[in-house]
Amino acid sequence: MPGKFFSERNLSFLVYEVFHADSLTEYPYFQDHSREDFDLVIDTASKMAQTLLRPYFEEMDRNPPTLVNGRIKVHPSVRPFLQACGEGGWISAGAAFEYGGQQLPQMITSSCSFIWAAANYSASVYPMLTSGAAGLIESFGSDELKQTYIPNMYSAQWQGTMALTEPQAGSSLADITTIAEPRSDGCFNIRGQKIFISASDHDAVENIVHLLLAKIKGAPAGVKGISLFVVPRERITDGGKLVPNDVNVAGIFHKMGYRGCPIAQLNFGENSDCQGWLVGEPHKGLSYMFQMMNHARIEVGIGAAAIASAAYHASLDYALTRPQGRRLADKNPASPPVLIIEHPDVKRMLLFQRSVVEGSLSLLMQCARYYDMRRSPDAKTREKASLLLELLTPVAKSYPSEMGILSVSAALQCLGGYGYCDEFPIEQHYRDMRIHAIHEGTTGIHGLDLLGRKIMMLEGKALAYFLEEAALTVNASAECAASHAYGQRLGEALQSLRRVTTHLMGVAGKGDVETFLADATLYLEFFGLIVVAWQWLKQGIVAEQALSSAQPSQDIDFYKGKLQTMRYFFHYELPKTLGLEKRLVESDGLTTDTLHGVP
Amino acid sequence: MPGKFFSERNLSFLVYEVFHADSLTEYPYFQDHSREDFDLVIDTASKMAQTLLRPYFEEMDRNPPTLVNGRIKVHPSVRPFLQACGEGGWISAGAAFEYGGQQLPQMITSSCSFIWAAANYSASVYPMLTSGAAGLIESFGSDELKQTYIPNMYSAQWQGTMALTEPQAGSSLADITTIAEPRSDGCFNIRGQKIFISASDHDAVENIVHLLLAKIKGAPAGVKGISLFVVPRERITDGGKLVPNDVNVAGIFHKMGYRGCPIAQLNFGENSDCQGWLVGEPHKGLSYMFQMMNHARIEVGIGAAAIASAAYHASLDYALTRPQGRRLADKNPASPPVLIIEHPDVKRMLLFQRSVVEGSLSLLMQCARYYDMRRSPDAKTREKASLLLELLTPVAKSYPSEMGILSVSAALQCLGGYGYCDEFPIEQHYRDMRIHAIHEGTTGIHGLDLLGRKIMMLEGKALAYFLEEAALTVNASAECAASHAYGQRLGEALQSLRRVTTHLMGVAGKGDVETFLADATLYLEFFGLIVVAWQWLKQGIVAEQALSSAQPSQDIDFYKGKLQTMRYFFHYELPKTLGLEKRLVESDGLTTDTLHGVP
Repeated sequence: MPGKFFSERNLSFLVYEVFHADSLTEYPYFQDHSREDFDLVIDTASKMAQTLLRPYFEEMDRNPPTLVNGRIKVHPSVRPFLQACGEGGWISAGAAFEYGGQQLPQMITSSCSFIWAAANYSASVYPMLTSGAAGLIESFGSDELKQTYIPNMYSAQWQGTMALTEPQAGSSLADITTIAEPRSDGCFNIRGQKIFISASDHDAVENIVHLLLAKIKGAPAGVKGISLFVVPRERITDGGKLVPNDVNVAGIFHKMGYRGCPIAQLNFGENSDCQGWLVGEPHKGLSYMFQMMNHARIEVGIGAAAIASAAYHASLDYALTRPQGRRLADKNPASPPVLIIEHPDVKRMLLFQRSVVEGSLSLLMQCARYYDMRRSPDAKTREKASLLLELLTPVAKSYPSEMGILSVSAALQCLGGYGYCDEFPIEQHYRDMRIHAIHEGTTGIHGLDLLGRKIMMLEGKALAYFLEEAALTVNASAECAASHAYGQRLGEALQSLRRVTTHLMGVAGKGDVETFLADATLYLEFFGLIVVAWQWLKQGIVAEQALSSAQPSQDIDFYKGKLQTMRYFFHYELPKTLGLEKRLVESDGLTTDTLHGVP
Repeated sequence: MPGKFFSERNLSFLVYEVFHADSLTEYPYFQDHSREDFDLVIDTASKMAQTLLRPYFEEMDRNPPTLVNGRIKVHPSVRPFLQACGEGGWISAGAAFEYGGQQLPQMITSSCSFIWAAANYSASVYPMLTSGAAGLIESFGSDELKQTYIPNMYSAQWQGTMALTEPQAGSSLADITTIAEPRSDGCFNIRGQKIFISASDHDAVENIVHLLLAKIKGAPAGVKGISLFVVPRERITDGGKLVPNDVNVAGIFHKMGYRGCPIAQLNFGENSDCQGWLVGEPHKGLSYMFQMMNHARIEVGIGAAAIASAAYHASLDYALTRPQGRRLADKNPASPPVLIIEHPDVKRMLLFQRSVVEGSLSLLMQCARYYDMRRSPDAKTREKASLLLELLTPVAKSYPSEMGILSVSAALQCLGGYGYCDEFPIEQHYRDMRIHAIHEGTTGIHGLDLLGRKIMMLEGKALAYFLEEAALTVNASAECAASHAYGQRLGEALQSLRRVTTHLMGVAGKGDVETFLADATLYLEFFGLIVVAWQWLKQGIVAEQALSSAQPSQDIDFYKGKLQTMRYFFHYELPKTLGLEKRLVESDGLTTDTLHGVP
């Protein structure tokens, strides 16, 4: 079984030293909690990861779900894990007391998600989906829906899903064709197909509850005609019995990784006996679903950072124990081999991974903090936090997902040939990681979301807030001997961001939408580097301040490591913005022209 | 079965229009050949790929080699393929007439390698290894060794291997411990372990011939004490019978990809009955082996470009047939979906892949041409070609391998969720691709080779030749309306290369070897971008000139596609040198310092 998969020290640094989760207890919503509660929750999540998740990391990959007699059979470890989630109140951890939840801050639940995903990404998805689906019913469902579904979901006896994607529509939700016909009893007959639905059928729970997008017959075309329904695999009779609801598994996908959690194609109503219950008002389904999608997008970012974390620790273990070669300056073949962690190129690959893992996690904690700040009694704080969260969500989803691919690849490279073989866990992390740039919106979709919607919304208000926040961090670095120079570098990058954004706004202003958005994916990459540089400067400042006071020696080395990784990020990663700026201000139509030389 | 996996039109463009393979027949060594011969060879290779390789691409992955009673069993398609290779003279295609070879130019054999590797990478490795191993015996072996081994290897009845890596030494060949003790009969007793040996045992041939590195008892320490041996799995008795030679499979590695070809751990002489035959002189083994290693390194580059080619074509097929979404400027949900090839972000991902695949293949053809120019009657031409080939080999190995990972990832992304599932071939290409940055020297090793040896050798003579060649291409672009601007961009990049190299030479001059080489991997990436930009300018000039004369319409579109991809490379890829230059001139010891914050 693989060893360490995350750093507790780093997590507590982010949660408390950088983002002060304990100060959230000043808000009335969180006032019943204390730091001791938070520590206990994180510690318990860590123990569950060690006992219920990590031991099955490889097994779940080697024995993926199977379709047996129309039902999906998953690894036997899923059931006890979900039972523990239900019994421990994990599904409802973030929910309000009135629904039986614990009102824990997102920063704490995100920390737990990170630990679980690092231990065993596939397994971590099951409770996350149920939590998101139940939250959606809680926010927008009728009292009857709440009473029927939420207790069974919070106890983890019923699995929640997001059923959006259809075969013909893919990312284009405007084109979904699943249809809902009103019945005389107030519910709807559902008919359609959904694909790539995670955890959409399995034998570790008693029932599955699909939060499904469909169009009510006669609804407007496009996204404005989408409604949200609750569609259970088994519906509840008046007598309280579960009976089949004509939801059938049409097939299971065989995936390269993320193999411990099934994704399936489902038929709804192929025998005209599938009933769904409308959530909220008709035609507002997509806006409701965005709550769950935004939650899931942040969770994807967390999953990506977590997989990269596990791979980082596996490669670090290897580098600390594997002797090979000599120092570059040592030409004496008689001198003994050194550990490979002594080689600059291996150090570079380790620092790269740390910069991605800890930079991503810092950004995700930043987003969690903004999420929690929406509980502030102060309206202005709530408004600002909401807008910043909206702006940063595509980055928090995509930066860890895209850079995580490279980070795990660097981990694999540290092991050479062994990294490519299944006796080490990294090849599985490499396969698992690749899903993240695809599910919950591809990177291309998030580029369009960032540049086409988030940057533009409210006349650039969210971006203005971001620039304000980043400038505060730059100012704070002015007093810091080590971080000062990096504050200047961030300042220059923010100027670059202004130049590029102003240029693109100019293109948009001329009404040339295609040219404006053609390089949106590059803009997302560019913006992501600057956002994560901001996070590294934040971490560097805190580390530098901590070093100035007396510390136990282990902490001194930890903080020095933080400063070193900040330096790495600014010297190796941030300069990538130079080439990206050069491209982003060209707007020459290279990818809006017709492609030549293809059949 | 997957469809098209390479472009015949592009291959012929490179082989004839850019690199004029037909003009090689002016050299006496190739004078018996004609373009018709070359075409026939390439066409036959293509037919073999279609019938003997591509049909088993997936099957070989799903049914990897197994270890049965101490012997490795491979997919049944390997034997008929190798038989066809033997019968058709494919193993010896590049060898001299005097050894039964066909004296074909490397440009032609490389073209065939590319086609086979694109069809089925794993299968293509078997004959390539035999060819390289036989070539080594041909170059340095005694007449007796030649007579005993070469005919059986050229007929593909015996498999050749490279047996270098040992468990404790990895990339550090100086530390190998396999020992050779002289016997009274002139051969040696061999004892040791080798790991990660491709095709090192299998049931599709009658015997295996290991070209093995070992140290003769009492040899000098380090690489200066390494000798080369022929060690067959079964040795030949005086009566001509094959008897076991105490070479045993200790284990088979379970790999993420490249699963159609076994890599194994071998024990030599565990029962003190393993005999080996010295090749050439004692202690010169590594320099001999470099012939095979350089051959294999170019072949790895070809394999990487080939896999990226197959993935590109799979994603192109998908993009040309999959309708989804609307144009960015079209907000009308009633308008029909467009093919995804209409989306700028998909076009960008396709152009990226083309720029990597065709840029890499162009560089590999450039290397093959330099290889062939070593047959020139002119000594100066031979010297220059040899040095350029030495300089470019680490780039030709590493650029396709590293960029190929990203290229296949982009292919996968074009398919969204489908790309992650095994009903399409791309997830396998993604897994297969990842080996290339590892085998035949990791990217880190090639960075050190490029900066520490190739740039420095003969006081920078090879680099000076490269700058000369690149300047010629820049000058040639001056007359071209479309390519002219890109000639200027390449000129600027060459200035950047001079600046960075001069800076690093300064660091080396101060004797600080660690700092000098710390970012060698980044230097390789930086140099690779410039080398491939040079290749794209070459292609652009040829395409532009071709467009100026009358052409059939299909060719017009092909050449326009070349120009478009050149533009892509210069606008999206070459600017990455800006950030790399910024880093490469810092030499601040960031990765030579001790790592902090690790246990």
